[in-house]
Amino acid sequence: MSDEETIFSLIIDGKIPSYKLYEDELIIAILDINPFSPGHTLLIPKEKVVTLDKLSSKSAAAVGRMLPKLSKAILEITGAEEFNILQNNGINAFQSVFHVHFHIIPKFPDGRGLQFPFKSTPIDHEEAIIMTEKINQIIIKGL
Amino acid sequence: MSDEETIFSLIIDGKIPSYKLYEDELIIAILDINPFSPGHTLLIPKEKVVTLDKLSSKSAAAVGRMLPKLSKAILEITGAEEFNILQNNGINAFQSVFHVHFHIIPKFPDGRGLQFPFKSTPIDHEEAIIMTEKINQIIIKGL
Repeated sequence: MSDEETIFSLIIDGKIPSYKLYEDELIIAILDINPFSPGHTLLIPKEKVVTLDKLSSKSAAAVGRMLPKLSKAILEITGAEEFNILQNNGINAFQSVFHVHFHIIPKFPDGRGLQFPFKSTPIDHEEAIIMTEKINQIIIKGL
Repeated sequence: MSDEETIFSLIIDGKIPSYKLYEDELIIAILDINPFSPGHTLLIPKEKVVTLDKLSSKSAAAVGRMLPKLSKAILEITGAEEFNILQNNGINAFQSVFHVHFHIIPKFPDGRGLQFPFKSTPIDHEEAIIMTEKINQIIIKGL
C-alpha cells in the first residue's frame, strides 16, 4: 500500500471531479483529460498501490474482467475499430501518476491513438460529457 | 471465436515448442522469442479470439489475476525495477499475431524495454532456458 495521495486517489475519494465511465467496489474507469485520441480511458483499481506487481489478485482480476467490456463500449461509441492497452510501471517506463492504472487507447485510421513520442491534447469537455453518458449506458446494459 | 491457426494456438496445442513460464486451464505465459528486453513475456489466454474486446470475462479475469504475479517473478529474475504492459488490437495498433495477448516488458536503466520504434533482438536460447526454470519455480511457489 502507498500512503501518497495522487490525482487518482482524490478522484476515487470523490474529492475532484472526473468523467466517470464505470465504478464498482474495486475499480473505477474515467476518461483521460489529456487523451491520445477521443475515448482514451483510464481503468484504475481503487487499491492504493504504485505498480502492477504489487496489486492484489482480487483487484487484478476485477481489472482484467472489466477490460474487454470497457474496450467494447469505447469502440462502439468512438467508432474506432482498433485499440491499445498500455500500463506503465516506473518513471523510466513512462509512469506519470503513481497509482497503478491501465490506459485504453482507441486507434483511428488517421493515426490518432498510441504513438511515440506520446501526443496528447486537452479533452473537449462538451464531447466528454456526451461520451461519458453513452458509455455509462452501454456498460450498465452489458453487466 | 476465430478459426485461424496462429503461432500462439500452435504453442497452446503443444505443436511447437516455447519457453513456458506458466500454464493453467485458461492461460499460458511464454518468453517472447524476439524480446524488447530480457524477460519480455507474453501472457496469452487460451481462448481463441483476435482482440481483447472479444475475450470472455472468465478468461479476462484469469489474465488480470496473473499479470501481477508474473510481473513480480519477471522483475525478480531479471533485476529490472520497472516495466510496461502492452496489448495491441488491430494491424494499425501494432498487432502482429492475431490471437489476443499481453506483453510484459521489463524496462532497464540503460533504456532496454518498451521504446519506439520497437527494437527487438532474437532471444538468447541458453539464457532463456535458465530464466524459464527460475520463473517457473517462483510462480509455482507463489500460487
